[in-house]
Amino acid sequence: MSEHTVKSYEGELEALSTQVAQMGGVAENLLQGAIDAVARRDSALADRMIESDRRIDDYERQIEAMAVKLLALRQPVGIDLRLTITSLRIANELERIGDLAKNIAKRALVLNREQPVRLTQGLVRMGRECLVQLKRVLDALAARDANAAAAVWRSDEEIDELYNSLFRELLTYMMEDPRTISLATHLLFIAKNLERVGDHATNIAEQVTYLVRGAYLGEDRPKGDATSTTAVPFEQPS
Amino acid sequence: MSEHTVKSYEGELEALSTQVAQMGGVAENLLQGAIDAVARRDSALADRMIESDRRIDDYERQIEAMAVKLLALRQPVGIDLRLTITSLRIANELERIGDLAKNIAKRALVLNREQPVRLTQGLVRMGRECLVQLKRVLDALAARDANAAAAVWRSDEEIDELYNSLFRELLTYMMEDPRTISLATHLLFIAKNLERVGDHATNIAEQVTYLVRGAYLGEDRPKGDATSTTAVPFEQPS
Repeated sequence: MSEHTVKSYEGELEALSTQVAQMGGVAENLLQGAIDAVARRDSALADRMIESDRRIDDYERQIEAMAVKLLALRQPVGIDLRLTITSLRIANELERIGDLAKNIAKRALVLNREQPVRLTQGLVRMGRECLVQLKRVLDALAARDANAAAAVWRSDEEIDELYNSLFRELLTYMMEDPRTISLATHLLFIAKNLERVGDHATNIAEQVTYLVRGAYLGEDRPKGDATSTTAVPFEQPS
Repeated sequence: MSEHTVKSYEGELEALSTQVAQMGGVAENLLQGAIDAVARRDSALADRMIESDRRIDDYERQIEAMAVKLLALRQPVGIDLRLTITSLRIANELERIGDLAKNIAKRALVLNREQPVRLTQGLVRMGRECLVQLKRVLDALAARDANAAAAVWRSDEEIDELYNSLFRELLTYMMEDPRTISLATHLLFIAKNLERVGDHATNIAEQVTYLVRGAYLGEDRPKGDATSTTAVPFEQPS
């Protein structure tokens, strides 16, 4: 490979895909680290994760620059155009996942300064489930496998159900012991962040389907998050 | 205007801008309605807002289709390419604002079934502030005014500060009277949703700047949301 070879069009498209794949790996790592920081009460790890969110932002800007340049100079059509557009969108979803993971890491720092709270395990279990979803959708993207992507899309409901039950548990916990309210609120927001990570993974799944098939999935994804319409009774049975 | 005139390239770009402007108007309406549904305890209004989020989703799909078609068939460059790309991104931000407003409307339905809660006023004030920000950034987009967009971008800090103080008040409220926890959690999430609406408005402001100037704003936006790193003392002075 000569250093001065002008990159081919195919080379540029490939480089774009590679960047997105790498960014996916970094996002996965960040989420893993944030969850581990909660699970192991590891504040040094949380600090590293907060710091490494910058890398995600750099990736997004780089992918944007590459995609815009491709659109402007190569005027892609068909699958190449879809690849360029979906790369932009997936980078955007990954950036948001990075933000959510960073926020989890920040909250881990607070939790780690206080006494351990039970219910953290449920949160960590939900986190691991989100991580699996993210891994699966990134694999589907790498393999250009629309069926695998559709499977991720459908199984987001499970994360929503984990969120619902965790949400109820946390409210009950707060009601039983109001001194836990401040910390439990952090757990509540971590759970909400994870639920949103799941949503972003399904958005990526939609992009993968669009990339491969040229059409979006239907709009009838089962939604399992019912907490916004739930009022837990005031007199909570304990 | 003949019905059968083939649309010109300029006409298509203009149509794209118009769609985005209309979508902005619908998003603004939806947010306004959701906040009013909380303020006036108006569940019929909340229902209408939940329903009208579909229109936002339709707009997003239509804008996507128009932008992708433009990219494929017209191969825009320079400002036209930026207009196409930013239209896609702004539509995405507006869709998320629509989702957040819908979620606020859903929570309004729950709140309206229960006794009125004090602190709703603070929430409504924060909501009105978000609405002003959204209006201002949509006006900046319509006027292609990068300075006005930058002003919106800078003043998101105020919304973050409103959020911080509301967050503290809500926690105190929950600690004082644990029977309020379930409802106060809905208020907490509404506040968080509004804070995120503010973030999306600043994202739109960034897109407007990019559209007009061809360059993004710096990355040093002041961030005022400190709640993720705050632990309220267990023994809350009341």
